Amino acid sequence: MPERSPAELDAEEFRRLGYAVVDWIAAYRAGVADLPVRPSVAPGFVRAQVDGPLPEQPRPLEELLGLLDDVVVPATTHWQSPNFFGYFPANSSLYSVLGDALSSGLGVQGMLWSTSPAATEVEQSLMDSLAGAIGLDPRFTFAGGGGGVIQDSASSAALVALLAALHRSNPGWRADGVDGLERVYVTAETHSSLAKAVRVAGLGERALHVVGPSPGSLAMSPRALAAAIGADVAAGQRPVLVCPTVGTTGTGAVDPVREITAVAQPHGTWVHVDAAWAGVAALCPEHRHLLDGVEHADSFCTDAHKWLATAFDASLLWVRDACALPAALSITPEYLRNAATESGAVVDYRDWQVPLGRRFRALKLLAVIHGYGLEGLRAHIRGHVALAEQLAAWVRDDPGFALAVPPSLALVCLRVITGDGPEADDAASREVLERVNASGAALLTHTVVDGRYVIRVAIGAVTTDASHVEALWERLRKERG
Amino acid sequence: MPERSPAELDAEEFRRLGYAVVDWIAAYRAGVADLPVRPSVAPGFVRAQVDGPLPEQPRPLEELLGLLDDVVVPATTHWQSPNFFGYFPANSSLYSVLGDALSSGLGVQGMLWSTSPAATEVEQSLMDSLAGAIGLDPRFTFAGGGGGVIQDSASSAALVALLAALHRSNPGWRADGVDGLERVYVTAETHSSLAKAVRVAGLGERALHVVGPSPGSLAMSPRALAAAIGADVAAGQRPVLVCPTVGTTGTGAVDPVREITAVAQPHGTWVHVDAAWAGVAALCPEHRHLLDGVEHADSFCTDAHKWLATAFDASLLWVRDACALPAALSITPEYLRNAATESGAVVDYRDWQVPLGRRFRALKLLAVIHGYGLEGLRAHIRGHVALAEQLAAWVRDDPGFALAVPPSLALVCLRVITGDGPEADDAASREVLERVNASGAALLTHTVVDGRYVIRVAIGAVTTDASHVEALWERLRKERG
Repeated sequence: MPERSPAELDAEEFRRLGYAVVDWIAAYRAGVADLPVRPSVAPGFVRAQVDGPLPEQPRPLEELLGLLDDVVVPATTHWQSPNFFGYFPANSSLYSVLGDALSSGLGVQGMLWSTSPAATEVEQSLMDSLAGAIGLDPRFTFAGGGGGVIQDSASSAALVALLAALHRSNPGWRADGVDGLERVYVTAETHSSLAKAVRVAGLGERALHVVGPSPGSLAMSPRALAAAIGADVAAGQRPVLVCPTVGTTGTGAVDPVREITAVAQPHGTWVHVDAAWAGVAALCPEHRHLLDGVEHADSFCTDAHKWLATAFDASLLWVRDACALPAALSITPEYLRNAATESGAVVDYRDWQVPLGRRFRALKLLAVIHGYGLEGLRAHIRGHVALAEQLAAWVRDDPGFALAVPPSLALVCLRVITGDGPEADDAASREVLERVNASGAALLTHTVVDGRYVIRVAIGAVTTDASHVEALWERLRKERG
Repeated sequence: MPERSPAELDAEEFRRLGYAVVDWIAAYRAGVADLPVRPSVAPGFVRAQVDGPLPEQPRPLEELLGLLDDVVVPATTHWQSPNFFGYFPANSSLYSVLGDALSSGLGVQGMLWSTSPAATEVEQSLMDSLAGAIGLDPRFTFAGGGGGVIQDSASSAALVALLAALHRSNPGWRADGVDGLERVYVTAETHSSLAKAVRVAGLGERALHVVGPSPGSLAMSPRALAAAIGADVAAGQRPVLVCPTVGTTGTGAVDPVREITAVAQPHGTWVHVDAAWAGVAALCPEHRHLLDGVEHADSFCTDAHKWLATAFDASLLWVRDACALPAALSITPEYLRNAATESGAVVDYRDWQVPLGRRFRALKLLAVIHGYGLEGLRAHIRGHVALAEQLAAWVRDDPGFALAVPPSLALVCLRVITGDGPEADDAASREVLERVNASGAALLTHTVVDGRYVIRVAIGAVTTDASHVEALWERLRKERG
């Protein structure tokens, strides 16, 4: 019989290398605040150093760690820096690093209940408990006839919600596909993942109806939505899904979920609430109003990997009908048939997502919740919100700056004021942002509101504290000149 | 100014807890061979122990590790056990655990080049180098005008290939969606992810043409494909994509890629080669024939997370046209605009996939390649293939068993022979499989070939060696009685 000589590590060697990896991560995180947040590298810088044939023989781990130090770190945008204020935060707290390592260590495939009962049920239980912790209506729990699932991203959550909506709106969808009559409602501020989902699902951009805002706001107008749906229905079209956003990417605007569901429901239109960034704030009672009306929606999504201290990927999706996703997505070839599935007593999460395979994602979130406690997570969120309020106060008090919109949770949108009119303010705002980013002292990104260039300050890195926001404010004032 | 008191770990505490996690993983892996591969738990077993409110205050990590020991491990199907022979392997080698932990530690979002130049370029470089290592045509590399990307799964790879094909076949697809004339060609043995992709993309099952096999085989008949495409074209339909499989899930059958591309190309039909399990074997020159004809295909997918020692998720997708996926998938809102993207000099991987966000997945694969060396990975594959050949020889020599089909690489498909006819053999095969699984000594799954129940033995766990295959064979013989 042939023998194998596996190159796999034994326990002792794994412990040695594992400790070295832990040490590397500890040192990286301990020093990340001192690194330029944005690297000053040109396209091709990394490839010039790493291109070439792969090693034929094993190399010591120290070499890989050296490559990280010498090439990767200098060419990395440091999302875990406390001076990172771009996009939205991508919390990868050290607790979640530990939990994710345990998931890799277990190495299970959670596609079916039978391929990992624990991965499935821990996720079900966690999603039910979290629903309670954020004040989501019990009908979104498995106990209440709905249920939660951890997706890779809010993009994928929106896509599967749309697929469930397509199936619900047309029982022939699985057999015959889309029919060209579908309509999906968003605003100009809705995340681009909705447009992407509409494209992926074969509807084409023509299916996308961009509903206008209520006067003086960036939030969806329920009246405009009602008019749009009414006109579409009169024209023989089918209002399949509307996506209100709780905390838009640009400015943190909040669409009126309650009014939107009231408009949508008589038409059987699926309401998917995208609270990717802001939703986790509902852990705090003072922010629970963010969920107002969500009890009437069909699905609700918020990302643990943005502001809830959990390493990507961990997008939390709840649906009010536990059958909705499997009804749309299930396909069972012979090699996936098993007694547990056929008993109907279990959840097979493969039917709640597009990919077949899946990691034990709940573990990293569980590690965070155990590490922080819910109170610690509330403090994490409250701290950032308080910092944003302080920054906004400084902006209000400085004639050289202005708030573009009122701050939303921990997101502050501001503009440079030159006194020379809005075009000059646009140019100055752009220049200040570029100088801040070039300095490496902080990283900011921008958006456009009502045609005007706006600097976004998204506070939320795990280690961001008052000193970092103070330093950012000083830097903004300095770069304004 | 408000102060925060972050609950985040400091370096010293992280090292202490990190070492404990490493120790836990080392102990789990050291002991996994002795655990029942399949847990004997009923639905609800885990929930009954973990349900309840989440902790308000932090809990020590030891409690979480205790939960793993007491609840999770006893309720886990142990994919990393050397006695796991079900489905396909889900290698999560300890090297990849280390690399993945480093990725979580860096905690970058690789959606755009500018949001992590290193994550993007290391992935590009690795995919180019790996293409060379498996003998893929250079036109699949960035240097050759194509390029590679790490997807979460072969399901998602098939989906984005289909979307690129839809766009190529109909320039109006982005605006108008699908038109109902699309046709997609598979076989009865093609993975169910293709049917799922067709459904997700809005084509409906009616778009799916199941092409028959060549006589006496389970492989797609190029002649039947030509007839199907010809008839569809004559009927005014559009042959959008054909998916030949290199190593089907059921039995490891290999569709004739060269002949299929010859049939498809005159019609502009996209050829997506699904080699999810088998493709990595092309690292070995003696298996490189698996790629025969792939140089004429449009896309090629193989999973590092199946048999290439890399923790899920790491599905390797190459396309021959670097513009194909961005052309189909790109959408750029204001908040994602940046100078690097607009220069056209960089790859933004968000446009190569459905989700926006993405991890630094290349790191775990790089850690594996550094740890094993390409020679070590070839030994890993060759060892399993040799074990499969030995098992197949034993089956051939035992009148109580028969091979259902010739072994394919490390997959052996067998049946119990009773002498009482095929129905009795079916029943006996099912019973033997169930007894083996119930014993916990090994885990097997099944398929159906030509209407007959077949036991699949997929050899490929990282630590499986001769002793485990010998034990399996003894167990099979014992349970046959």
